[in-house]
Amino acid sequence: MAGPQNRFRLKNIDNTGFGTNSSVEGGRLVNPDGSNNVRKRGLPVWERISFYHTLLRMKRAHFFLTIMLFYTATNIFFASIYFLVGVHNLSGIQHSESVIDELLAAFFFSSQTLTTVGYGHVAPTGLITNAIASTESLIGILAFAVVTGLIYGRFSRPRAFLLFSSNALMAPFKNGKALMLRMATYKNNHLTDVEAQLTIALHVEENGKTVTRFYPLPLEMSRINSMASSWTIVHNITEESPLFNYDQKALSEAKAEVMVYVRAFDDHFSNTVQQRTSYLSSQVLFGARFIPMFQRSDDGSYTLLDLSKINAHEPADLP
Amino acid sequence: MAGPQNRFRLKNIDNTGFGTNSSVEGGRLVNPDGSNNVRKRGLPVWERISFYHTLLRMKRAHFFLTIMLFYTATNIFFASIYFLVGVHNLSGIQHSESVIDELLAAFFFSSQTLTTVGYGHVAPTGLITNAIASTESLIGILAFAVVTGLIYGRFSRPRAFLLFSSNALMAPFKNGKALMLRMATYKNNHLTDVEAQLTIALHVEENGKTVTRFYPLPLEMSRINSMASSWTIVHNITEESPLFNYDQKALSEAKAEVMVYVRAFDDHFSNTVQQRTSYLSSQVLFGARFIPMFQRSDDGSYTLLDLSKINAHEPADLP
Amino acid sequence: MAGPQNRFRLKNIDNTGFGTNSSVEGGRLVNPDGSNNVRKRGLPVWERISFYHTLLRMKRAHFFLTIMLFYTATNIFFASIYFLVGVHNLSGIQHSESVIDELLAAFFFSSQTLTTVGYGHVAPTGLITNAIASTESLIGILAFAVVTGLIYGRFSRPRAFLLFSSNALMAPFKNGKALMLRMATYKNNHLTDVEAQLTIALHVEENGKTVTRFYPLPLEMSRINSMASSWTIVHNITEESPLFNYDQKALSEAKAEVMVYVRAFDDHFSNTVQQRTSYLSSQVLFGARFIPMFQRSDDGSYTLLDLSKINAHEPADLP
Amino acid sequence: MAGPQNRFRLKNIDNTGFGTNSSVEGGRLVNPDGSNNVRKRGLPVWERISFYHTLLRMKRAHFFLTIMLFYTATNIFFASIYFLVGVHNLSGIQHSESVIDELLAAFFFSSQTLTTVGYGHVAPTGLITNAIASTESLIGILAFAVVTGLIYGRFSRPRAFLLFSSNALMAPFKNGKALMLRMATYKNNHLTDVEAQLTIALHVEENGKTVTRFYPLPLEMSRINSMASSWTIVHNITEESPLFNYDQKALSEAKAEVMVYVRAFDDHFSNTVQQRTSYLSSQVLFGARFIPMFQRSDDGSYTLLDLSKINAHEPADLP
Repeated sequence: MAGPQNRFRLKNIDNTGFGTNSSVEGGRLVNPDGSNNVRKRGLPVWERISFYHTLLRMKRAHFFLTIMLFYTATNIFFASIYFLVGVHNLSGIQHSESVIDELLAAFFFSSQTLTTVGYGHVAPTGLITNAIASTESLIGILAFAVVTGLIYGRFSRPRAFLLFSSNALMAPFKNGKALMLRMATYKNNHLTDVEAQLTIALHVEENGKTVTRFYPLPLEMSRINSMASSWTIVHNITEESPLFNYDQKALSEAKAEVMVYVRAFDDHFSNTVQQRTSYLSSQVLFGARFIPMFQRSDDGSYTLLDLSKINAHEPADLP
Repeated sequence: MAGPQNRFRLKNIDNTGFGTNSSVEGGRLVNPDGSNNVRKRGLPVWERISFYHTLLRMKRAHFFLTIMLFYTATNIFFASIYFLVGVHNLSGIQHSESVIDELLAAFFFSSQTLTTVGYGHVAPTGLITNAIASTESLIGILAFAVVTGLIYGRFSRPRAFLLFSSNALMAPFKNGKALMLRMATYKNNHLTDVEAQLTIALHVEENGKTVTRFYPLPLEMSRINSMASSWTIVHNITEESPLFNYDQKALSEAKAEVMVYVRAFDDHFSNTVQQRTSYLSSQVLFGARFIPMFQRSDDGSYTLLDLSKINAHEPADLP
Repeated sequence: MAGPQNRFRLKNIDNTGFGTNSSVEGGRLVNPDGSNNVRKRGLPVWERISFYHTLLRMKRAHFFLTIMLFYTATNIFFASIYFLVGVHNLSGIQHSESVIDELLAAFFFSSQTLTTVGYGHVAPTGLITNAIASTESLIGILAFAVVTGLIYGRFSRPRAFLLFSSNALMAPFKNGKALMLRMATYKNNHLTDVEAQLTIALHVEENGKTVTRFYPLPLEMSRINSMASSWTIVHNITEESPLFNYDQKALSEAKAEVMVYVRAFDDHFSNTVQQRTSYLSSQVLFGARFIPMFQRSDDGSYTLLDLSKINAHEPADLP
Repeated sequence: MAGPQNRFRLKNIDNTGFGTNSSVEGGRLVNPDGSNNVRKRGLPVWERISFYHTLLRMKRAHFFLTIMLFYTATNIFFASIYFLVGVHNLSGIQHSESVIDELLAAFFFSSQTLTTVGYGHVAPTGLITNAIASTESLIGILAFAVVTGLIYGRFSRPRAFLLFSSNALMAPFKNGKALMLRMATYKNNHLTDVEAQLTIALHVEENGKTVTRFYPLPLEMSRINSMASSWTIVHNITEESPLFNYDQKALSEAKAEVMVYVRAFDDHFSNTVQQRTSYLSSQVLFGARFIPMFQRSDDGSYTLLDLSKINAHEPADLP
């Protein structure tokens, strides 16, 4: 029979963690970066958010900008306090008519205290100013401890550094076809014991109601010993495949989403790393195959992997 | 037969780590936070306690208060020493009649040394004062190293951040009933390979003696791939269940305690995390079922999980 | 037959990592702290030793003493350099006749530079002195980074914190006897999935040559879910036991060594921890049994574990 | 039949992560240090390189040299800025005719700011200079946080510290021969649950085309409990071995490469560690056997392991 009816014969799985009615019109289950497309509420934001992890996952530029802003804001805060207490309690500040100048002097004294650089040409004299400066230097030390922790945390967060092809291809394979996608590590890291797992989510009508069903997509090879260069993972479309007889249109109607989960052991971190992504039906190309992305070096002494070709493909007739 | 006699047919387990006579009148085995209800003695407290872990598990406010107190105490300690040696060995301190003023000056000099801010408007001159200041700045650096380690340790301690429903429900299920409890992650963390395990402790009379027996409670689904939103774990009360025929009163008489153990892989920490909790018989509600805690967002583009509804339930007739 | 001949019927294991001729007259294979009784040579000491781990495993007092010595030595080193260059290049040092005073001034300036406290009442003026001070403050910062790393490493090193009974007991068990030893965690840590493994090494004569044979000792229970209080591990002396018919004298003649290996998941570190120890034949007591080391608290609300009773035992007749 | 034809009967494996045409004339698949002989391009170097890991794997001397260079370069950069803004904005710098002297003064002020030593005999006065110094001290603190993270990362990177024999030997074994190689830990670390895996890559002609085939080499013992001293791993050349009938010449013609993968649990790091290496056919010696590298200590109380003998072997006739 022509038509994507094969799936009724197959057992769907219900331990994906997504419910059968998690179907979302126009949305997706898993975001391209691998996170779940879920938002939370019902708790105040400071209980709902792990600040540490937010700062860990932030882009590098944003992270350093955040620190810069925090540094400036803290100095403004303390400068205001020193100003309110009176800058005459700071020895070394020349008597000046200008409020701005006094505030600036207080600001720079604050920064010298917070970073513990403490030149001393400006120094606290009165009791209150001394107490504030003493507190500020402790805060500076603690803030620095926090920043050290964050920076180390950012460095050492185990990541797979996997680059995925931006398309999944329905390519000729053996005498039929197969769903293929390609991945490679893009950093100088080395993965061993690499395992991949493919799951497809299909939003289908059952008893007049749209429900989401999940099916595993068995792979020709689901584990390799070492991610030496690139790895193309292959789901052969046999009669046992939930995608048997699906074409581009049927995939699109089912709002199909191919969820990819890769787990490996990383040599750098000596830790398990994992990465997830997903492909929407619009990212699946029918009738194309990948072009190899590696070649011998000119002198033949090593293999050269061209990361810019991760998605390189050419048309290929499907049977 | 009416009555909770089913358990005699079932095999209890004895590898829980609790003894059969660990039964404690009025107490519980596992505290709600997952720790064992056991205290230790027989060793001095400093050998019996891991200070690092105590400081790691302390509430944030208590932790920073502890540091503040330690900072103040250390400064008082060194201020006393500088005072005893004589503040005339500190250049820059104005000759003052008042002991208080001298002590305060010594205190602030100490804080400037401990934090290594070292303005220098007050500075050590004599041999002894110099030696003390030199030692204090080393102590300051070491203390700061300790604090940095503690703060990073607090940040990076792998935690599951699981919120459990405050009640376990005896809810209608299929044609019978089931014991259900619900959990969700309350932070922006992401768990994969989530496993749950339920064990019930029943304090029962055997040969005229009260002993504690432990039975595993098999789950309808004991493992999910991804903690995408909430997860309701379900123990179906079949004839094979140790809770078959138990009602609220029987549970209460057996001082039943449902122990929950969840283990998962956390994407943030790239580490295994686990969390435990337990429900006393008084926390088990008969004839209620959970109300879903997630819904589609208004624009349909993502799923919204309302954490304040973690325990939301409604009455439901049991068969 | 009376005599320890049972072992000939049993399969010995050869994957212990110890060779069959690792038999050492009068020595032991595993030290009480769990390390192997092996020393290495053939490489220079700095290649053969991991300084990081040596500093990590050092006793706390020794560790801080080492830091103190390093701090003093570095200051003496730099003080000598400042002295050789000439202390007149350090502004603020009063012209003094005494070499000792100049050296002391240089020493304290060095310590102020190394800790970056930098009061500034003494400060470098000439080019060379400035360059040295600039280098010293960098070294100070790097040394501090190293110390921070070491202190965090010491804190966070996953350890099982297991206390073992100092004796293994041959105690009455069921209708026969069993080899028992007891362990408990002595800190406020919590172990789950605790596994124990017992191996016995027997130095026996085979074909006129003394060889070492290793046999696993099967346990009544080799895994518990949670180390709630203490755990007594039990090897039942059945006809299948390699220790069947062994008495104190036979054990001693075979220079028997019981090697214990415990592996668990620690809740604090969220990491696997392990600990090893071994018992020589002289530590095995025949005809004794452990006295319970836990009891109910006076108000019955929790269990009290008395760590000082870890080895508490009483005589017990063996069958 | 004489000749290395045995492999046609055996199943080759294709999950090594290397392709069948990864054969490289004159090159090798795995470098002696265990990395894959692959280079990447197609992404800018800063996306293709993990700086953290590059700095982690760098030799110690290079690492500290890099820091020294970075420190000097940063100081030159800021010195130039202070000079351009005008050194009259730095109090305490004596008016000097010489540009060099002004630059040097600015350089040392910069280093005092960057390290936060801040003596204060030179101090910023104007607005711009103050602002720059304030920024520089923040940068100093952040750079120091980075260095602390790097140093801790270098310390705590789990490594197996395995020393391999530089040759693999074809040695007499039982009534035939076996491929043997030896390893030992060269630091004071302790490995448990040590697993080894051997794979051979043979570049062979199939249908007139040179392809690379991979075969596992089964080991006599592939796992030991504890790396107590040295471990010789042994692949017996039986009729089932892919190397049956291969001699030195045949190995060389097939450009054979023996890839070794060792995985263990390290007691120090409480972490899984792994190490890889490979032997080219030219490193395989036919007709030799290892000489033991351990002996009893003179007083018989411990075992002495001589690491300089890791590759010690003597000629031995093969059958």
